[in-house]
Amino acid sequence: MTQLSEAVAGRVTDQMRQVAAAERLEPEQIRAGVAAGRIVIPYNRHRSFPARGVGEGLSTKVNANIGSSLSHAHPEEELAKLKVAVDAGADAVMDLSTGGDLGAIRRAILAASPVMVGTVPIYAVATELEHSGAGILAMTADMLFDEIRAQAEEGVDFVTVHCGVTRGSLDCLAAHPRVTGIVSRGGSLLARWMGHFDRENPLYEQYDRLLAICSEHDVTLSLGDGLRPGSILDASDPPQLEELKILGELARRARAAGVQAMIEGPGHVPLDLVVSSVEDEKRLCDGAPFYVLGPLTTDIGAGYDHIAAAIGGALAAAHGADFLCYVTAAEHLRLPTVEEVREGVVATRLAAHSGDIVKLGERARRRDRAVSEARRALDWNGMFANLLDPVMARHKRLHSEDAEREVCTMCGDLCAVRTFDLYAKERDGK
Amino acid sequence: MTQLSEAVAGRVTDQMRQVAAAERLEPEQIRAGVAAGRIVIPYNRHRSFPARGVGEGLSTKVNANIGSSLSHAHPEEELAKLKVAVDAGADAVMDLSTGGDLGAIRRAILAASPVMVGTVPIYAVATELEHSGAGILAMTADMLFDEIRAQAEEGVDFVTVHCGVTRGSLDCLAAHPRVTGIVSRGGSLLARWMGHFDRENPLYEQYDRLLAICSEHDVTLSLGDGLRPGSILDASDPPQLEELKILGELARRARAAGVQAMIEGPGHVPLDLVVSSVEDEKRLCDGAPFYVLGPLTTDIGAGYDHIAAAIGGALAAAHGADFLCYVTAAEHLRLPTVEEVREGVVATRLAAHSGDIVKLGERARRRDRAVSEARRALDWNGMFANLLDPVMARHKRLHSEDAEREVCTMCGDLCAVRTFDLYAKERDGK
Repeated sequence: MTQLSEAVAGRVTDQMRQVAAAERLEPEQIRAGVAAGRIVIPYNRHRSFPARGVGEGLSTKVNANIGSSLSHAHPEEELAKLKVAVDAGADAVMDLSTGGDLGAIRRAILAASPVMVGTVPIYAVATELEHSGAGILAMTADMLFDEIRAQAEEGVDFVTVHCGVTRGSLDCLAAHPRVTGIVSRGGSLLARWMGHFDRENPLYEQYDRLLAICSEHDVTLSLGDGLRPGSILDASDPPQLEELKILGELARRARAAGVQAMIEGPGHVPLDLVVSSVEDEKRLCDGAPFYVLGPLTTDIGAGYDHIAAAIGGALAAAHGADFLCYVTAAEHLRLPTVEEVREGVVATRLAAHSGDIVKLGERARRRDRAVSEARRALDWNGMFANLLDPVMARHKRLHSEDAEREVCTMCGDLCAVRTFDLYAKERDGK
Repeated sequence: MTQLSEAVAGRVTDQMRQVAAAERLEPEQIRAGVAAGRIVIPYNRHRSFPARGVGEGLSTKVNANIGSSLSHAHPEEELAKLKVAVDAGADAVMDLSTGGDLGAIRRAILAASPVMVGTVPIYAVATELEHSGAGILAMTADMLFDEIRAQAEEGVDFVTVHCGVTRGSLDCLAAHPRVTGIVSRGGSLLARWMGHFDRENPLYEQYDRLLAICSEHDVTLSLGDGLRPGSILDASDPPQLEELKILGELARRARAAGVQAMIEGPGHVPLDLVVSSVEDEKRLCDGAPFYVLGPLTTDIGAGYDHIAAAIGGALAAAHGADFLCYVTAAEHLRLPTVEEVREGVVATRLAAHSGDIVKLGERARRRDRAVSEARRALDWNGMFANLLDPVMARHKRLHSEDAEREVCTMCGDLCAVRTFDLYAKERDGK
């Protein structure tokens, strides 16, 4: 049984109750959302951690990508990234390792993680083939499914699978050239293999085989967008929409098989296309949870892409995106450091919360109200307690000349709050 | 003669030509925009620097607030902030000093600044009264106008004047309580003085006197929003809109007197009110340039308010805001450091550019295209050259194991660009 099949059968699971408690909603609301495929609870049956939901009516969740690469593989560093990500408020991590002992790193992360863990199984297959010198063309469909099964048995909660890179969507790409081609690693590897052998994508062709594995272990599918735009100039183009239509079909088939599924989205999107990109996904995929990467609203921000991603992610979340994958300041340059992971999670949480203020209304405004009331009262501790990152705020405040005074160094004795107080007291006394 | 009166008379000034060249537009287009009050060119007749325009059809400009406070006054630090702000791409700085020798700091900034300089003259009056122990209640209307005249003679290009804090708008505030009251320093000082003496705001009552000074020296009015919201919970409330209506009237009177004027806006605005807040300003103020502070899309981000401001500023710019005042990571905590000034400008430039991609279309996408084409070609130098901050990007890239290779440490040998290349070459060769 999966969370989805239980929900369809009318049963409320412990995980649905945990999600409801975390969201301050009724368990029945969560069950109905899961049954409709509008909420997923990525929670592999072999794992045990506080379950969280992703989808309609829930707070926007944040994922942090961690993992080694061929030229940078330090398992202890990945565990450090896991820790700072979770401490900074990440609701999920994805282990995207492609260097070192992948299995050992993944199992260490699964053992240590108090949040859901996702992977991209084709990375493990491709990395092994690359190490051995055989290369991606030596891949077989069985290798892919064996890897997915092995990871499902280990406890991976959700997997990114680029099932929408099909002969049809690749034909569409060939007919509509773009600035950046394919920028998804998994998507490019599959396209290379498919093109060379003139064969269909095994993840699409043998989709039922994938569903069987996911159903057995309750692994949530994260239907990857292998044709996502790599530049704002390619956003919402025909290949992207062609793939999205396929993902919508696959989401329906997953649902029918009792397998939870969410849809991955871009990437690089100018601000005027962010809202329609969310609406397209919701319409074409029957409201399946939408998991976006950023999106970045400009291509010129490398070094600060966590900020460009926060801009796009906030607007996407406000209009219905359910899950934001962070982008770090190192994106497009190198793997992030531990500190860049932390900053990336904080920036993305700011974006998610800015979206929730709109999407969830009063439910999401409690902390904003508490911070603002504390500011009005010059109650510094009350403000700190409700901030996204009290530690950073206290640190900045401590390093100022007015740290011990009621006011701050910005306004000093010209503090607007104090001046307004004097005004209001006199006004109200008249 | 002012830029506005010259434009109305049909004459194209040198400054209009400079603006046109910077924007790659025709000088006549700039003249028409200035004549209509939809573009301002803050450029005091006593100054000499490359003129820039703010308003309709132009790229979104960025302002950095610098300046000392009573408890933190180091003139050389303010000059360092000026330099990093300009180097990072600020189009304007405001000297908001309230500590030390204000005149000396302001004159040093004016002498050193290659960009427009704005001030809030009431700060100088209030600071002097505070220092002397007299306090703001000892202020006279003459003190205010004398200060504005003195700064106009020194060369200040634009001044924030809170003319919209009137008996009428304060009555509206009393009738509609908010979470945070008045958070504008200038607004709160005027309210205190007006309330105590039961008098009208001299900047409103003697507005023609203000216009005469600004006309004589071609100082651009930045009509301040003394009643701007200090919390997302107060956004777009009746007092804010009441003040905005008054500012619209004052903008019309300024225009009739040949004085350039722009309108200041919030502050703290949830994402779903950002667009209407821009539209309200444009409608109520006949398209006068809109100068927003952030806006922050959440109140819980202290320590990272440059990111919260980038989120709101980008959406505001995309929908027509013309000028973004940065907010730094130190906002709500203390004065920013030099490094926080730099980060604040970069974050705000990212926001401005994300807005321009929408507002100006192809005109603003040249660098995004260049970066994306360079990425597609794995041309690292081509990418760096077109980034917002090549120095930071090169620095991050250099500190990676793959700095000397074509690929990056994120993907290493699984580089999607290279894999797609192999795929596309084989595809196109068939």
